[in-house]
Amino acid sequence: MKILVTNDDGLFAPGIRALTEVAKEFGDVVVVAPDSPKSGQGHAITIESPIRLKKVNYMDGVEAYECSGTPVDCVKLAKNVLYKNDEISFCFSGINHGSNASINIIYSGTMSAAMEASLEGIPSIGFSLLDYGHDADFKPAQHYARKIIAHCMKNGFGNTMLLNVNIPKMGVDDIKGIKICRQSKAGWKEEFQEGVDPRGQKYYWLTGTFVHDDPGTDDDWTALESGFVTVVPVSSDMTDYQAIGSLESLQKI
Amino acid sequence: MKILVTNDDGLFAPGIRALTEVAKEFGDVVVVAPDSPKSGQGHAITIESPIRLKKVNYMDGVEAYECSGTPVDCVKLAKNVLYKNDEISFCFSGINHGSNASINIIYSGTMSAAMEASLEGIPSIGFSLLDYGHDADFKPAQHYARKIIAHCMKNGFGNTMLLNVNIPKMGVDDIKGIKICRQSKAGWKEEFQEGVDPRGQKYYWLTGTFVHDDPGTDDDWTALESGFVTVVPVSSDMTDYQAIGSLESLQKI
Repeated sequence: MKILVTNDDGLFAPGIRALTEVAKEFGDVVVVAPDSPKSGQGHAITIESPIRLKKVNYMDGVEAYECSGTPVDCVKLAKNVLYKNDEISFCFSGINHGSNASINIIYSGTMSAAMEASLEGIPSIGFSLLDYGHDADFKPAQHYARKIIAHCMKNGFGNTMLLNVNIPKMGVDDIKGIKICRQSKAGWKEEFQEGVDPRGQKYYWLTGTFVHDDPGTDDDWTALESGFVTVVPVSSDMTDYQAIGSLESLQKI
Repeated sequence: MKILVTNDDGLFAPGIRALTEVAKEFGDVVVVAPDSPKSGQGHAITIESPIRLKKVNYMDGVEAYECSGTPVDCVKLAKNVLYKNDEISFCFSGINHGSNASINIIYSGTMSAAMEASLEGIPSIGFSLLDYGHDADFKPAQHYARKIIAHCMKNGFGNTMLLNVNIPKMGVDDIKGIKICRQSKAGWKEEFQEGVDPRGQKYYWLTGTFVHDDPGTDDDWTALESGFVTVVPVSSDMTDYQAIGSLESLQKI
């Protein structure tokens, strides 16, 4: 069984190494990851320029490639160039350094790569750890990734193709369990750091604060903050179905 | 009333000029657009490097800026740097050169910019014309953009904040009207053009064929192909709600 592992932080991030170690326990792993950090790339694809793919030594028994493109490009190349005649059975993306709960899913290269695989018919899971530190401990995340992968390989993905899994920053014994959630309503309060470069030109650098104002208890951010591993089933259908009826008068203009 | 106009094809694409001409009829327009084509950028944001913003001469009575970042960056800068104390009442993105119906919404910089504005609380519309030709006639698209903007400014956006509008490639008299739709199920059958560059290095260049296999009649691609202007209300909530129940056993592992 062929398993594709990818991420948005690049091949040498500790998170993808942790995820590859787990994936190896379940099948034949191929890693295709960006050749540099590509956080915040969302569902970007490379269409204006060519993409490079380079086979590299990575981990015993694992075939690995660095890709010059985006996380989504990595998945497209794996599926349509490297393994066009072989079935890729599953795709696991991550483990991301930082949360992809709530609205972060929309900006996340990790989740967009997993989404792309699901669009190609490959059941996929994106994993993220709510720890931004350089010395983040991925062991509890590995523990839960192993459990979730084993369960989904045996029992399937329910009636979805893509799961967004977020793991809190705590030890295995302190984590309260797994909770199936909806995507939390939240947003970023943006600020830009303004500066002047060495050539006297003004620049803006994005920063911001995450603002969670969802009053629910069934949303992923609330559950993650409460110490649960959160699992959100994700759809590529972005239709706002409840709004369809409210727009009927537009058809008559 | 302040109206933000943006796109992903850059400030000098004919489509944004066509949209700005229409938007000017309704209020005080500020254009913030990428300084080069940024198609297929999805919801990418620039976090690893600074962003530049340059005021440029564009069109009489219109304030305009070129931005070095992605389409989503353009909206973030407009809302949080240029007009942080002023209300931006509406955001219009496009008119995109090519369709953003169906799954194309997920790759589209045009739609991601409009989505970002809606996340910032600004009612938004993305407009796309199903014409990839360099001599595309934007007049029928302008006609429908004008009608839809006028209607939504007067009557609101129903209970949504974001509309994905696609216009077929035909004359105003041949267009059958406006249809409210759901996002069509479809995908891309990818292929990569493989080549060798002047330095002897192998490259891959993304290409592909759009495959529409949605059996419905209420989806946007079917309606667009049938000659309707399609309007899909769009949500940033990507939860696959119908799958939540099917995953319950995952909570018990």
